Amino acid sequence: MFDLQDIRSQFPILDQKVNGKPLVYLDNAATSQKPVSVLESWNRYYSEINANVHRGIHTLSQLATEEMELSRRKIQKFINAKNDFEVIFTKGTTEGINLIAYSLTGLIKEGDEILISHLEHHSNIVPWQMLCERTGAQLKVIPIDENGVLQLDFLEENLNGRTKLVSVNHVSNALGVVNPIEKIIAEARRKSEAIIVIDGAQAVPHFKIDVQQLDCDFYVFSGHKMYAPMGTGILYGKEEILRKIQPFHGGGEMIAVCSFEKTTYADLPFKFEAGTPNVGGNIALGAAVDFMESIGREALQNHENALLDYAQKQLLQIEGLKIYGEKANRTGVASFNLEGVGISSDVGMILDKMGIAVRTGHHCTQPIMKHFDIVGTVRASFAVYNTFQEIDILVEGVKKAQRMLS
Amino acid sequence: MFDLQDIRSQFPILDQKVNGKPLVYLDNAATSQKPVSVLESWNRYYSEINANVHRGIHTLSQLATEEMELSRRKIQKFINAKNDFEVIFTKGTTEGINLIAYSLTGLIKEGDEILISHLEHHSNIVPWQMLCERTGAQLKVIPIDENGVLQLDFLEENLNGRTKLVSVNHVSNALGVVNPIEKIIAEARRKSEAIIVIDGAQAVPHFKIDVQQLDCDFYVFSGHKMYAPMGTGILYGKEEILRKIQPFHGGGEMIAVCSFEKTTYADLPFKFEAGTPNVGGNIALGAAVDFMESIGREALQNHENALLDYAQKQLLQIEGLKIYGEKANRTGVASFNLEGVGISSDVGMILDKMGIAVRTGHHCTQPIMKHFDIVGTVRASFAVYNTFQEIDILVEGVKKAQRMLS
Repeated sequence: MFDLQDIRSQFPILDQKVNGKPLVYLDNAATSQKPVSVLESWNRYYSEINANVHRGIHTLSQLATEEMELSRRKIQKFINAKNDFEVIFTKGTTEGINLIAYSLTGLIKEGDEILISHLEHHSNIVPWQMLCERTGAQLKVIPIDENGVLQLDFLEENLNGRTKLVSVNHVSNALGVVNPIEKIIAEARRKSEAIIVIDGAQAVPHFKIDVQQLDCDFYVFSGHKMYAPMGTGILYGKEEILRKIQPFHGGGEMIAVCSFEKTTYADLPFKFEAGTPNVGGNIALGAAVDFMESIGREALQNHENALLDYAQKQLLQIEGLKIYGEKANRTGVASFNLEGVGISSDVGMILDKMGIAVRTGHHCTQPIMKHFDIVGTVRASFAVYNTFQEIDILVEGVKKAQRMLS
Repeated sequence: MFDLQDIRSQFPILDQKVNGKPLVYLDNAATSQKPVSVLESWNRYYSEINANVHRGIHTLSQLATEEMELSRRKIQKFINAKNDFEVIFTKGTTEGINLIAYSLTGLIKEGDEILISHLEHHSNIVPWQMLCERTGAQLKVIPIDENGVLQLDFLEENLNGRTKLVSVNHVSNALGVVNPIEKIIAEARRKSEAIIVIDGAQAVPHFKIDVQQLDCDFYVFSGHKMYAPMGTGILYGKEEILRKIQPFHGGGEMIAVCSFEKTTYADLPFKFEAGTPNVGGNIALGAAVDFMESIGREALQNHENALLDYAQKQLLQIEGLKIYGEKANRTGVASFNLEGVGISSDVGMILDKMGIAVRTGHHCTQPIMKHFDIVGTVRASFAVYNTFQEIDILVEGVKKAQRMLS
């Protein structure tokens, strides 16, 4: 049974006052808070078995290796990857995408095309722009309509033999819109041989992912947005493509034989895991998976959807408040502005005085802001520990801000 | 006053039994243990102020940003960098070196030369081999003698206008030999315009570094070998060269303006810090600096040198035991083999049964092993919390292994 009180009790950080008011943390799309079980997992690692992994035969090193590999298998199951070695530990989504962009540079040549969407975070734009600069490939962008919905008829004209890579996010961080990636993947498979990358940073925290069913080539996400510590993340890649692309970082652990004349690379997943991994963080990421599974993915999703529905309904009662992005198909985020209030950060600062943490600004998506001809939005974003009462406090806060700024 | 008992009490992990014997942790060159103050710093962050940094105007985000930037300034002071923005947070030494190798690719062309040494870790070999593959540059290797000492006369003949980069480690991880980097830097400055990179992973934990006095262009090191959590590290770079090279990861935080037509990059240090940083880890790295400063760098170094001297003296009393590498100028590491015992891991396994954690194998330095015509060594490596009694236990253990394996 879904027990919100019990869930909240696992996040003592929420039980504090900010500016004299109870904290209302609605900045979860930036980073989530961490349950006690995740912090304890990390502490247990450093208090009992801390050692470098894989390379050591002493007991602590073996225990640390076992725990980290157990975490890898938890994540494999969590996203339904076929093999555990298709799960690569990274430091976060941004590194995952950049790893792909660097590692497949040799497969891209002048005249090739890379397809992204207008709805991307800068981390799914800039790495491809840099790849285009390195190779002479061309960036193409799926347009959006006035509701932030991807215009898929663009695919009909723009997917072809030159399309070597398609990279889109599963959920927009700025608007919360869930993109029809199943359709995009199907179209890309039908009309091209493109490598397909999904940025799942804003999806994995909110609903169940099945990478085999999706049939993407890569799926990347961060730990810190799904209740795990910062400095953790996952790059899922299909075995076939992981074998085909070059390693990213050179270093320890990723080589088979190293000599000055010729170096050969290690097998998966180590080929992409040069250097000492973030062992404690990676183990804690497994504990975050346990936390989410203990609630149940469906129960978690139902609660968050109910929160979002309620938030949208209540916010829209405020005259002059506009929510950006398609409402019917959205998760985790309400992104809005008040008519006549030019600067979202003014609203954010007033909310902060009331203990309410929201994000304001461009959310690392300047092209989306330009599309709507705004400099930013106020973004309230939800996690499993948020309450309906917190949304009432948010709505009251926004009303107060409106009165103060009008 | 140096109080070893007090220092050990800050590392509860040391107070445990492994295979029924008190743990003797001598694998510090692989990773050090973490004092309670570092773990507490991390926990305090996640229990009180966890939020994403820089981009938020709410209170938690501001506090998190202030704490992380305070940590950056602690590290600036710790290595005596001129400016705080010359201190870039990475996930470790390997990432730091790869960042440099990727970011200066555009400055290297066919026929250029990159100079490293025979004494490098794979992480300071493979990134340059990959750079050579990308650019057509050529790798040159400073040779070593039978004591693992760099043969600097090689510089006279091989430093010239074609030398675009020199990258050497400060201390060899496999042998503990301290390299004459001051001389190498001076020669490189005199005879070339090479960019100079120092891998300081095995130096920073043991003695004071002054990057301005060294006059290197880059100095990279890991947090996890200097009492901080894994997944942290520092790339120090001189302002001038950091401005000159390209960014590494594309993404959030590292852009000034992002559009599909043209993206411009943010100022230092953010140009090199795309994505959500490991805020908790970076703050804990500052706590590790505080820990080392609380002991005093000189006191720490004196204790570790005394340990190493004692260890070498005692180990060399064992007939048929050979320590590799120059003894006069060494820190932190005793790397040895027993005559007639072909496989170092056999020794390691017997030591493990006695609770003694050492590393065995090639230590990610296969070229060094090849030089000595061995497959590996037994490496005992020291940190500030190790005791003379632990070295006695090690020596007894090695004697026992010798008896069992003869």
